[in-house]
Amino acid sequence: MPITRPTLMVNPEVARRNIRAMMDKFNRLRIRLRPHFKTHQSLEVGNWFRREGIRAITVSSVDMAARFIADGWRDVLIALPINPNEIPVINTWPDDLALHLLVDHVAAVDRAAGLLKRPVDMWLKIDTGARRCGLVPEDSKAIMDLIRRIGRQSRMRLRGLLTHAGHTYAAANPAGIRRCHRDSLVRMAALQKQIRDAGGPELQISVGDTPACSVCESFTGVDEVRCGNFVFYDIMQYRLGSCRLRDIAVRLICPVIGSYPQRGEVVVHGGKVHLSAESISGDDGKPFFGMVAACHAADPWPMPLPRARVRSLSQEHGVVFLGGRRAARFLPGDLLAILPVHSCLTADLSKHIIDLQGRRIGSTISI
Amino acid sequence: MPITRPTLMVNPEVARRNIRAMMDKFNRLRIRLRPHFKTHQSLEVGNWFRREGIRAITVSSVDMAARFIADGWRDVLIALPINPNEIPVINTWPDDLALHLLVDHVAAVDRAAGLLKRPVDMWLKIDTGARRCGLVPEDSKAIMDLIRRIGRQSRMRLRGLLTHAGHTYAAANPAGIRRCHRDSLVRMAALQKQIRDAGGPELQISVGDTPACSVCESFTGVDEVRCGNFVFYDIMQYRLGSCRLRDIAVRLICPVIGSYPQRGEVVVHGGKVHLSAESISGDDGKPFFGMVAACHAADPWPMPLPRARVRSLSQEHGVVFLGGRRAARFLPGDLLAILPVHSCLTADLSKHIIDLQGRRIGSTISI
Repeated sequence: MPITRPTLMVNPEVARRNIRAMMDKFNRLRIRLRPHFKTHQSLEVGNWFRREGIRAITVSSVDMAARFIADGWRDVLIALPINPNEIPVINTWPDDLALHLLVDHVAAVDRAAGLLKRPVDMWLKIDTGARRCGLVPEDSKAIMDLIRRIGRQSRMRLRGLLTHAGHTYAAANPAGIRRCHRDSLVRMAALQKQIRDAGGPELQISVGDTPACSVCESFTGVDEVRCGNFVFYDIMQYRLGSCRLRDIAVRLICPVIGSYPQRGEVVVHGGKVHLSAESISGDDGKPFFGMVAACHAADPWPMPLPRARVRSLSQEHGVVFLGGRRAARFLPGDLLAILPVHSCLTADLSKHIIDLQGRRIGSTISI
Repeated sequence: MPITRPTLMVNPEVARRNIRAMMDKFNRLRIRLRPHFKTHQSLEVGNWFRREGIRAITVSSVDMAARFIADGWRDVLIALPINPNEIPVINTWPDDLALHLLVDHVAAVDRAAGLLKRPVDMWLKIDTGARRCGLVPEDSKAIMDLIRRIGRQSRMRLRGLLTHAGHTYAAANPAGIRRCHRDSLVRMAALQKQIRDAGGPELQISVGDTPACSVCESFTGVDEVRCGNFVFYDIMQYRLGSCRLRDIAVRLICPVIGSYPQRGEVVVHGGKVHLSAESISGDDGKPFFGMVAACHAADPWPMPLPRARVRSLSQEHGVVFLGGRRAARFLPGDLLAILPVHSCLTADLSKHIIDLQGRRIGSTISI
């Protein structure tokens, strides 16, 4: 059966190698790896982690937590500041679940506390530069207020300080990633010490973004890392220097629907509803939406063709530059393999994933 | 029950008004409106069109066609050049279905013809400037070859010439849209005449993009239009001048999860997996990902706040600029309503839609 619609193919061998490499690194550093499952959202890929010995996971929504809890996971961190209105759902989850929640606002603690009927572990979300969620580490007053407020709630146990140094994604190269990471750790450690010195609780430190976890070697003072993208990697990570091209474990297999050799282009069925609208800037300064490999019966896992790029996407179409001679060789019904710019979003958009033999890996993904 | 996760709200009254306005216009012009259903992908919204008298529809994939055919639609155009490997699925569809397919390559005709077991209506895809799919109208040799090739297939009936002047989206304003549209019509009419003069068949002309269908009044020679976005509209269409703000029929309702008055920002649960990664350039030259309205019990359909913008998105988070005083008023659990940049992609990412009373409109959407 040929592939007839855009379909996400995963190379289990590459993905498992990525999992093992990250586990080896953090086992060696004696730091807990709590991988972020938002990248794959797949029960089956989750099982690959489980088989390697992972027990603690990160997710990015209550819905995603529910999915993995139903599949037997019992140590789950929801890495999105808690919305108090989701507490009634959380109350229905099993008693033997270690549930970790994020908070950065006293109003969230107060509103959640009034509804909460189960014990939860709390983490203070700290903003070390990403300017998304979290209290800035220097805002001692708000942080100490929040610690006291949590301390008064019998069902909440304060466990630690958590940050996502997402600004590593704006770094130009591994040296830039190391700088962000180092600065983030220094500020987290200083905050931890300040709380301890003020008579506050002993707090763990949780950090984690795939660029830093891939590139950096120094994690002094860190108790837990929460990287996720590394299981699949993608063009963005490759460009940051987090991985090699051969570490990218996913391809979106797309049928060709048009061939335009005079433009050096083909058009595939594969658009923003499959790859997402995420682009990255090319060497020529123009954005592109993926690298491109040719599918051959002889090579089930082709590497990208030089200079071949997804130039533009609309809802269901992708315009692929191949060069004139190559474009003429691809006819409607033939297949191309696209290496996505952002594998988390591409996986989220996929209804299911297949392996190199075209077999479905597990059931439907995406919440 | 409060809304606890990012949820697409549709104002049925506004959407139906948009449907009726477009129908009135093309009824007046005596042109067939074959609306594109990729915007909503919803059986229930499809029924709103049906109740207004629409019988012919456009979709952008075989899967999407199957969904609407199963719901009783019997005149369907798949506006993506046909992938011959999907013909076996098409062969299973009901006999009383008028099925319209797109083609721009002899190889697609040959490969499809060998598999086809039912009559289909064929349309030549013509590229009048969007540089996506289609033959350029001046490439008479390829066009006449394709016409002859289709003519030899007993199950294929050639119906017309079809274009999508998608380059109207790059226009700066309604005058630019009118220029693209006029140029596109002139080239389509010239091609139609040239084919007729060469002894070829009498062909219909199908065009359609929401900007041109919203803004232009002259459709001389056109038999069919296929606009789709107009049912919901969005910020992109508003910026092009296709609609007024009050014509935008959708809001993504998002719970606040963080409040950062010192930055003038709040963070909502609502990210690229809900709104898509699509952005548009603001007056300050910076991209933004949506306009923002405050949800009030008193006003179930709030209009956007001046200067409030979604500044950045990650997978599940959205950073919203409100201004310092306003940001302080929103606490975790409160709701904001985001007007999306691109409603087609936002709807595709939604599991279901709700009306102003929070009732689900129909079942799961998105194929």
